[in-house]
Amino acid sequence: MTLIDGKATAAAIKAEIKQEVEQIVASGGKRPHLAAVLVGHDGGSETYVKNKVLACEACGFRSTLLRYEDDITEDQLLDVVRQLNDDPSVDGFIVQLPLPGHISEQKVIQAIDYRKDVDGFHPINVGRMAIGLPAFISATPLGILTLLQRYNIPTSGRKVVILGRSNIVGKPMAQLMMQKQYGDATVTVLHSHSQNIREECRQADVLIAAMGRPASVTADMVKPGATVIDVGTTRVPDATRKTGFRLQGDVDFDAVAPKCSAITPVPGGVGPMTICMLMLNTLKAGKKEIY
Amino acid sequence: MTLIDGKATAAAIKAEIKQEVEQIVASGGKRPHLAAVLVGHDGGSETYVKNKVLACEACGFRSTLLRYEDDITEDQLLDVVRQLNDDPSVDGFIVQLPLPGHISEQKVIQAIDYRKDVDGFHPINVGRMAIGLPAFISATPLGILTLLQRYNIPTSGRKVVILGRSNIVGKPMAQLMMQKQYGDATVTVLHSHSQNIREECRQADVLIAAMGRPASVTADMVKPGATVIDVGTTRVPDATRKTGFRLQGDVDFDAVAPKCSAITPVPGGVGPMTICMLMLNTLKAGKKEIY
Repeated sequence: MTLIDGKATAAAIKAEIKQEVEQIVASGGKRPHLAAVLVGHDGGSETYVKNKVLACEACGFRSTLLRYEDDITEDQLLDVVRQLNDDPSVDGFIVQLPLPGHISEQKVIQAIDYRKDVDGFHPINVGRMAIGLPAFISATPLGILTLLQRYNIPTSGRKVVILGRSNIVGKPMAQLMMQKQYGDATVTVLHSHSQNIREECRQADVLIAAMGRPASVTADMVKPGATVIDVGTTRVPDATRKTGFRLQGDVDFDAVAPKCSAITPVPGGVGPMTICMLMLNTLKAGKKEIY
Repeated sequence: MTLIDGKATAAAIKAEIKQEVEQIVASGGKRPHLAAVLVGHDGGSETYVKNKVLACEACGFRSTLLRYEDDITEDQLLDVVRQLNDDPSVDGFIVQLPLPGHISEQKVIQAIDYRKDVDGFHPINVGRMAIGLPAFISATPLGILTLLQRYNIPTSGRKVVILGRSNIVGKPMAQLMMQKQYGDATVTVLHSHSQNIREECRQADVLIAAMGRPASVTADMVKPGATVIDVGTTRVPDATRKTGFRLQGDVDFDAVAPKCSAITPVPGGVGPMTICMLMLNTLKAGKKEIY
């Protein structure tokens, strides 16, 4: 059984990015510049943004963090987006989600210049990815695809079953895995209304769990020899930790792992790849590789 | 076994559209206006565009046909698109595909104002549809969804298997069928590289065949009681016809139909719905229902 090490893979990719950045800069090119907009003081968002800034440093990027209190109006935030769109020094930027309830996330996402949309959430990037055109692909699906590729896990013609149909994981993952130039797989998407979930999962050569329901993928749902990718990261209370919680995946790891040919742990699997893929998208934005 | 009558359903919907249009016009509103751009003299394209113009008449729409020879340059065609974008009298327009080889279809599609893109091919519409936002949905998938709804064929939680992963049928069909507000189904997409195609198809409660391979869905691929939707329309030589050909679906109809609870014929199934859905999108454009 192979433990798919997202942390090590992400570190290797960040080292590759840093090397490329230093070559670009040495030959007179521009250092990629990621800006992040953080509204309010949500604990999770603070951590994510902090880690993104740290990842920029690891990759040799310039980074800018723009902070606003959660009483910023939608119009004011849209102005910030427009300024970042117009700022030639910024190659790509993200607006950390969730936003306060009085601000429309979709309005903000759609205001972002799609050529700087390194999160890949703008409908133009979603649509271009769906029809196989070059696009910024959102970080979690791209991270999973990259792990499968780096671990040489075959997907062409194989059965990939995706649990969950969210806009940020399940749906784009399905679109990537079915396309010839990415997964080239037979893809099934399951969700809360699906019947025969156990039987469907047992057919999977690659099972991707992204429902956000802790430990809900049990050993009887997994075919012997399958690859299991766990996208779940639910915080469950844990008195033995300093933080008071631990991250729990969607997979009952201890029971499932012995049946697998390969599996991602939580933490240390898909999670570290996500920020790493944001860095890769920022490098592509800096190099104007897509647009 | 129910024969799903696309011709009658399309006629009924067109009558509904016409009634609504006359109400709009009677109350001082604007008559919806569809423009079609036809380049060259491809036989299939001529027929499609002619039928679209006839459908406009049936729906009480204004229609405009712009014809160009196939030596029109890409820049000239892009100018035509820009003029239609800027023409306030035009609610929606289509550029009939395929285009001559020296013109980039993607460039032309992406030049269309997405708010007038009643074909639903612009990446913004593709992306918005994928994430569940209001969008122009392309005509064939929307037609299939409408047939399933009008014939009260249950899909929620059921197994929908799609044969084919084209950008105009297979992929958008999968995205629609998996979304809660449309099909809410468990969706599997199969294609030329898939393994176990027969076994996968036999699990389908609803089987949608869109490979363009005549009569390739045989009786042993269909579960008794399934609904079968045939999107194939291949012209096969037929000396007994005046035209010298007949339309052949992807399904071996005579062998498959007796096993089904419902099935679409070819012709007269999905085909007539496609132009009808273009009319529905044009009505929506006229009413500014989406944008």
